[in-house]
Amino acid sequence: MTTAHFAKPRILTGDTPTNTGLHLGHWVGSLERRVSLQDSYDCYFLIANIHAFTTLAEKPEQVRANTLGIIKDWLAAGIDPDRSTIVIQSEIPAIAELSWFFAMLLTFNDVMGNPTLIHELETKGLKDSYSFGFPMYTVGQCSDILTFRPELVPVGEDQEPHIEMCRKAARKFNHTYCGVSVRTEDKDHAAQGGLFPVPKALIGRVGRLVGTDGKAKMSKSLNNAIFLAETEKAVQKKVNGIAAGRASTTAPFSEDSPLLQYIRAFLPQERADEIVAQCAAGKEVFDGHLKAEVGAAINAILEPMRARRAKLEGEAGDAVVRDLLRTHTKKANAVAEETLYLAKEKMGLGWGKRTLVF
Amino acid sequence: MTTAHFAKPRILTGDTPTNTGLHLGHWVGSLERRVSLQDSYDCYFLIANIHAFTTLAEKPEQVRANTLGIIKDWLAAGIDPDRSTIVIQSEIPAIAELSWFFAMLLTFNDVMGNPTLIHELETKGLKDSYSFGFPMYTVGQCSDILTFRPELVPVGEDQEPHIEMCRKAARKFNHTYCGVSVRTEDKDHAAQGGLFPVPKALIGRVGRLVGTDGKAKMSKSLNNAIFLAETEKAVQKKVNGIAAGRASTTAPFSEDSPLLQYIRAFLPQERADEIVAQCAAGKEVFDGHLKAEVGAAINAILEPMRARRAKLEGEAGDAVVRDLLRTHTKKANAVAEETLYLAKEKMGLGWGKRTLVF
Repeated sequence: MTTAHFAKPRILTGDTPTNTGLHLGHWVGSLERRVSLQDSYDCYFLIANIHAFTTLAEKPEQVRANTLGIIKDWLAAGIDPDRSTIVIQSEIPAIAELSWFFAMLLTFNDVMGNPTLIHELETKGLKDSYSFGFPMYTVGQCSDILTFRPELVPVGEDQEPHIEMCRKAARKFNHTYCGVSVRTEDKDHAAQGGLFPVPKALIGRVGRLVGTDGKAKMSKSLNNAIFLAETEKAVQKKVNGIAAGRASTTAPFSEDSPLLQYIRAFLPQERADEIVAQCAAGKEVFDGHLKAEVGAAINAILEPMRARRAKLEGEAGDAVVRDLLRTHTKKANAVAEETLYLAKEKMGLGWGKRTLVF
Repeated sequence: MTTAHFAKPRILTGDTPTNTGLHLGHWVGSLERRVSLQDSYDCYFLIANIHAFTTLAEKPEQVRANTLGIIKDWLAAGIDPDRSTIVIQSEIPAIAELSWFFAMLLTFNDVMGNPTLIHELETKGLKDSYSFGFPMYTVGQCSDILTFRPELVPVGEDQEPHIEMCRKAARKFNHTYCGVSVRTEDKDHAAQGGLFPVPKALIGRVGRLVGTDGKAKMSKSLNNAIFLAETEKAVQKKVNGIAAGRASTTAPFSEDSPLLQYIRAFLPQERADEIVAQCAAGKEVFDGHLKAEVGAAINAILEPMRARRAKLEGEAGDAVVRDLLRTHTKKANAVAEETLYLAKEKMGLGWGKRTLVF
């Protein structure tokens, strides 16, 4: 059995619940695309709640709260639980089991040389005290993805090294256990009998959205984020604080103007081009008007989210999410168990068949 | 629920199927004790078939053959499938899942500084090409053990650093998620509400048996081993080749005499002391007679094994083992799933209950 038999091509992507509250950086980086991909793909959206323990091992209640928070963010943002599957990492044993198989195929240097991992270890201030689980999560992420045998993985650009590692793991498995030649092109692995399609990264339309401080990438911890759950008024206030980065109302925009990045990210391309042209021509354009226009565009995105979010509030909302998770966990495990079974058969590890009952 | 409620105290130990053919080094190092512990303990004997992929990732059929081979060795040696449980690592999802939890609690330096791991990386000639799974297996071994919440872990002395890591993982889990104070003594962890007893290593009566070459520790790869499956004649022939390491038939034994090590390992202590005293007193004692006596003692151990082994030969024997594994996998998973469920509840990861059906 190969992916050629799937009714719709699959997508897997997800978030680590180290924070609550998704923001516009997540929206333009990946979430917007996730919502729109639901029509044409069989989508799996994963909460990496075990990987959150890399930094929150001593705050398990926070991981749990963040997990519920992110699912609510997703549902509010337009992830449709009738079409897509929400996957809680800790509820899918096959992910943990397949991690072991990929860990045997990736070298220690593959893992420790991963640029995103190196950057994280440098910036998270963990010094020498980081857990073994920290580098291990990069292998786990290969498994998060490959367990669902997707063709596409929509991610932010900082995740590219992880996807490249995942592609390496898929190729290595297919070469070692499925008889796929090392000369086979990535796109032909499934057709040549490879269990795992070699998945492609799909980078969001805006890989990196600058924060409202105009300096760093939008991030909750830098206090420069506009959250998806903010009120209309709060959004406009934050947008008003974004620096225009030009000398006067008749000056052109420099390409690194923070406000210009928001104009390009949230106004239609035609309108953004028009603004740039007007400013370049020395026409008087008020930053305040532009900020009002950007704020309105952002609020137009967030307004339907607010309506959906209202239905998910409080303990009643938690109960809705927990109910939903029961059916989704079952559905996700049906796929994951099939992958694990096939992988074990290929590896000479078929000692018997099991069924997971929920 | 704590281990205080277990009917019998539990033991977990096992082997990695990187080789077929257990030898006398395994017997005196651990196997003999395993067999004798079955009366007073609830014993779990684990085949670390996933960990075998650290060196055999490209030879899965060899891992499978070795797995069957070791189980047959065990049964032949006297592991009683009616009293003890044989555990195939790959068939216990909770082991892989719990590995992740322990990986978050152990530091990278805890793992990479493990002396046994460092020694293995140096001696296995893998240079820089070793898999990430190689260091990861040390964390997996913590999980192999703790999944069964044993009180004792009978191992060879080279495994002590692994058991110390396992004890650290147990303490850390109990401190972080079960409210056990860091000042609690190891023996009191379970009574103080810790999910995991802090297990003790139990070193075999002969931690290190010299090979028949008289130089290095007995090991298949050094071609200096007497295998449990050898014929009576082959055993005697190998024993005859062991150096006595003394100058004449009336010379005393030096303490590092290879033959003396075998005399101490396989003859009753009283008889060994008598031989040493006779030689020390300058009495004529022929090495050939001593070797005949040692060979006979070893063959007395191996004879009942040969009888049991005869019933496990060939495809019929494979079928017996596979049948046995079905019931044992079910039994082992009942324990493992309970541990996982309790661990997840403690960690705020209780999202629903599952049942594994075989």
